[in-house]
Amino acid sequence: MSEIRKIKPSLSKGTRDFLPREVAKRNFIFDTIKSVFRKYGFEEIETPAIEKLETLTGKYGEEGDKLLFKILNSGDYLKDVPNDKFQNQNYKELTNYIAEKGLRYDLTVPLARYVVMNQENLPFPFKRFHIGPVWRADRPQKGRYQEFYQCDADVIGSTSLLNEVELTMIYLEAFEKLGVNVTIRMNNRKLIDEILNISGIAENKTAVITLLDKLDKVEWKGEKGIEQQLIALGLTQSKTNTLFDCLNSNNYLQFIEKSVNTEVAKEVKSVSQFFEKESRVLFDPTLMRGLDYYTGTVWEVRANGVQMGSIAAGGRYDNLTEMFGGQNMSGVGISFGIERIYDVMEELNLFPTTISQGVLLLFVPREEAVEAFTFQQVQALRDAGIGAEIFLGNVKKQKQFKYIEDKDIPYMVEIGENEVKSAIFRLKNAQKREIMGEFNMEQLIAKFSKTQA
Amino acid sequence: MSEIRKIKPSLSKGTRDFLPREVAKRNFIFDTIKSVFRKYGFEEIETPAIEKLETLTGKYGEEGDKLLFKILNSGDYLKDVPNDKFQNQNYKELTNYIAEKGLRYDLTVPLARYVVMNQENLPFPFKRFHIGPVWRADRPQKGRYQEFYQCDADVIGSTSLLNEVELTMIYLEAFEKLGVNVTIRMNNRKLIDEILNISGIAENKTAVITLLDKLDKVEWKGEKGIEQQLIALGLTQSKTNTLFDCLNSNNYLQFIEKSVNTEVAKEVKSVSQFFEKESRVLFDPTLMRGLDYYTGTVWEVRANGVQMGSIAAGGRYDNLTEMFGGQNMSGVGISFGIERIYDVMEELNLFPTTISQGVLLLFVPREEAVEAFTFQQVQALRDAGIGAEIFLGNVKKQKQFKYIEDKDIPYMVEIGENEVKSAIFRLKNAQKREIMGEFNMEQLIAKFSKTQA
Repeated sequence: MSEIRKIKPSLSKGTRDFLPREVAKRNFIFDTIKSVFRKYGFEEIETPAIEKLETLTGKYGEEGDKLLFKILNSGDYLKDVPNDKFQNQNYKELTNYIAEKGLRYDLTVPLARYVVMNQENLPFPFKRFHIGPVWRADRPQKGRYQEFYQCDADVIGSTSLLNEVELTMIYLEAFEKLGVNVTIRMNNRKLIDEILNISGIAENKTAVITLLDKLDKVEWKGEKGIEQQLIALGLTQSKTNTLFDCLNSNNYLQFIEKSVNTEVAKEVKSVSQFFEKESRVLFDPTLMRGLDYYTGTVWEVRANGVQMGSIAAGGRYDNLTEMFGGQNMSGVGISFGIERIYDVMEELNLFPTTISQGVLLLFVPREEAVEAFTFQQVQALRDAGIGAEIFLGNVKKQKQFKYIEDKDIPYMVEIGENEVKSAIFRLKNAQKREIMGEFNMEQLIAKFSKTQA
Repeated sequence: MSEIRKIKPSLSKGTRDFLPREVAKRNFIFDTIKSVFRKYGFEEIETPAIEKLETLTGKYGEEGDKLLFKILNSGDYLKDVPNDKFQNQNYKELTNYIAEKGLRYDLTVPLARYVVMNQENLPFPFKRFHIGPVWRADRPQKGRYQEFYQCDADVIGSTSLLNEVELTMIYLEAFEKLGVNVTIRMNNRKLIDEILNISGIAENKTAVITLLDKLDKVEWKGEKGIEQQLIALGLTQSKTNTLFDCLNSNNYLQFIEKSVNTEVAKEVKSVSQFFEKESRVLFDPTLMRGLDYYTGTVWEVRANGVQMGSIAAGGRYDNLTEMFGGQNMSGVGISFGIERIYDVMEELNLFPTTISQGVLLLFVPREEAVEAFTFQQVQALRDAGIGAEIFLGNVKKQKQFKYIEDKDIPYMVEIGENEVKSAIFRLKNAQKREIMGEFNMEQLIAKFSKTQA
C-alpha cells in the first residue's frame, strides 16, 4: 500500500457496482432460474473470463472482433515486435504482437471450446447451464453495458426435438416462478425456406428473410411497408401475396400439414403438439431470429404489458464444436436476458417484498457497558440458526433507523441495564417501531425458528 | 460466425475450466460460507471485473503493479500516442497511453472505491461480503492461478472489537460446517511493538519483525536460527533473550496483563476473553501477518492434519477509504482462501458424498416410439417439484451407464411398450442396477417428494 495517491474514484464506463439490495434481487432471478435448470437435469459449469484471442477471434463477425476486450501481454510486451510492425503505427497489426488474451464475449464460444477440450469427461447429451459476466466494448447506453451477465442452458449432442419441448417448459416454469407474464414465440428456420419455395421465391432469399424479420418493427410500417420493399427487390405482386398468405395463415398448424414439405411439418408438429393448449406459446412463421446462426427451432420471449425488446431467446444450431475441430454435434439452447428481466421486474414491481439479505433481528446496545451481554444474546440466536445482528455503530437513533431501513431488518430489541438484569427482551417491529411483546431468549428462539422455516 | 478457422483449442495459461462435479463442490464451499456470513448480518455486493487503472495502480506495491492485467483501449489505441513516446519503444511509458482499464487484482481496493462512491446508500457500519474472481499475471504453478476466486467479509466504519469476536465466530462456524478441522491463530499488531519496547529494541524494528515472521519457517531453523540473525542484526544477547521470553510466555494472557501497556492489553483481552475455552483459537504473539497493512488484530487459519499454508487470513486496517479521498474509516476483515480450502477438502476427503448437481431419476425410453410417453412421466415428476430427466442420447447401454455415472444420478426407470400400457414403473438403483420395486406415478411422486425434502 505504498505511494497512495488520492484520486476521486470512478467506474470504468459501462460497468456497474451493485448495492446489497440489487444483489439480493439479482440473486432471486439467478436462483429461480438455476433451480428450474437443475430440476430438468442441467448442470452448472464455469469457464474462465480470460480466453486466448485465437479462441475468440473470427467467431463473431468483423463487428464482434472489434468489440473484443484485448489484454496486454505481461512484462515488456514490445520486446518481440518486429521493427517494421512498430514503425507503421498500424494498431491492428501491432495488436497481434502485444495482446494474445481477451475477455470472453459470450458463453457460447467458450462452451464450444469446453466441449471439445473436456469431451472425455462429459456426459452426452451434455446438458449444461452457465451464468456469468461477459464483456463487450460496445458504446454504453441505457440498458447496455460493457460488462453484463449472460445466462444460458444448452443441450449438446442430441437431435431429439424433445429437447426443444423441455427448453420451452423451462421458459414457462422459470418465468412463472419469477412472476413475469410472457409470450413465447417459436419458429423453425427450415419453415421459412419452405414458405419461400411455396411462394416461388428462388432469388434474393437472404434479402427477403431480412425484410420479413422487420415485420414487427414500427419504423418499417408493418406488412404494407415490407410489401413495398419486397416489390422494390423485384418480387412480383403475386409472389408477395402468396408469401403473406402463408405467413398469415390463420390456422398455422393446419397450414403446415397441408402445404409444407412433410419432414419440416413433422418437425414443427412434434414440438407444437405439446403446446396446443398453452396460450403463452405461439408458433409464429415470421420469427426469423439469428438468421445466419440458427438452423432449426428458434425462440423469442417477450414480457407482456411492458415496452421492451425480447427478454430471452434461443435456437438450434449445428456444428457448434466444428470451429475447434470437434466432431459434428448438434446443439440447442436458450438464453435468459438477465439484465432486461431485472428491468422488467422493477418496472412491473414484480420482486417479492420480502427479498432482502438482511437478518431478522437487530439488537441495539444502549451503552458500551452492555455490549458484551448483547453480543451473547445475538450469538444465542445465531447458534439456533437465526440470523441476527448487534449494532456496533453510531449511537444516534437516526443512524440506527437508517441502518434498519437500508438493511430491511424487520425486528429490533434494545438492550440496557434493565435487560441485562431481567433477561427479558422487548421486541419491536423495526420499521414501524411498534412494541410487539416481551420475550425471554427461549421464547425469542421459538418465535423466530418458526419464521425462519 | 463467418470465416471459421479450425484450431486446436487450449486455455490461456493459469486459467481453468470447471466440470459440473467441480462446480458442485465449489458451490458447496461458497454456499456454506455465504449462509454463515448472512446469519451474521453481512450482505453480498458486487463490483465490476474491469476497473480503471488509476483505481488499481499504486495500491499493491511495485510488484503488484507489474501483475495487473491491463486492457488495450478500444479502436485505434495508437491514435493519441505522442510520437516520441512511440519511438522510444519504452513499454512502460506506452502503456499509459494505450491502456486505461485493468482487471481487479483483489476485492479490497474495489471495496474502498465502492464505499467512497456509494457512501450515501450504504448502512454503517457497513458489513459486506464479496465472492468473485480476481486476476494476477503471476507465474502459474501448482495451486496458483492467474484467475482465481477471493472470498472476503469486512466491516467498515466500526472500531468496536466485538467485530473481531464476530469474525472469529464466523471462521469457527464456517469451517465447522465445511468439516475442516482448523487452528485459528490471532495476534494484535500493536502487541509486537510493545514487546519490542519491553525488550529495549528501539532500532531496526521492521527488520526484527520481518525476522520474527519467519519463526515457523523450517528453512530459517526456528528460534535458534532467528536468534543468530537477530544478533547479526546488532541486537545484544540480553535483548534477544528478553524478546524470546516475552514471545514464549507460557501464560500469554497473564503476561499481557502484567507486562504490556494497558491499552493494548485491554484490546487483546477484550477479544481473547470470548475464546478462553475455545481450543481452536490461539493467541500467538509471533504471528506477524501483513506487516505493512494491518494495524490491529490479525488472523491466520490453518487446516489441521494437512501440509498446506494458511487457508484463511485477515486483520484490522485503518484508512482503507483514505486512498480515494474518503473520510477516515477503520476496517476489519477476513478472507477465506477458497482454492486452498477446496484442495484441503479434496485431500482429506471432506466433501459430502451426496454432492452432485444431478437429478434424482433418469427415465430411459427403450425406443423412439415411447419417447413422448416417457417425457410426460418425467414432466409429471418435475411438476411435483422432483428433479428428473429423460435420456435422449445414444441407445447403447454403455453410454447410458456412463451418463448415469458422470451425473451421479441415483435412480433410473426404463420405459418400453409394457410400461406405456401398464403405467407401472420398475425403479432401479442406477449405480448398482438393482431393482427396488414397482410403482405407479403417484407412488413415485410420494416416494421422491420425501427424499427431496
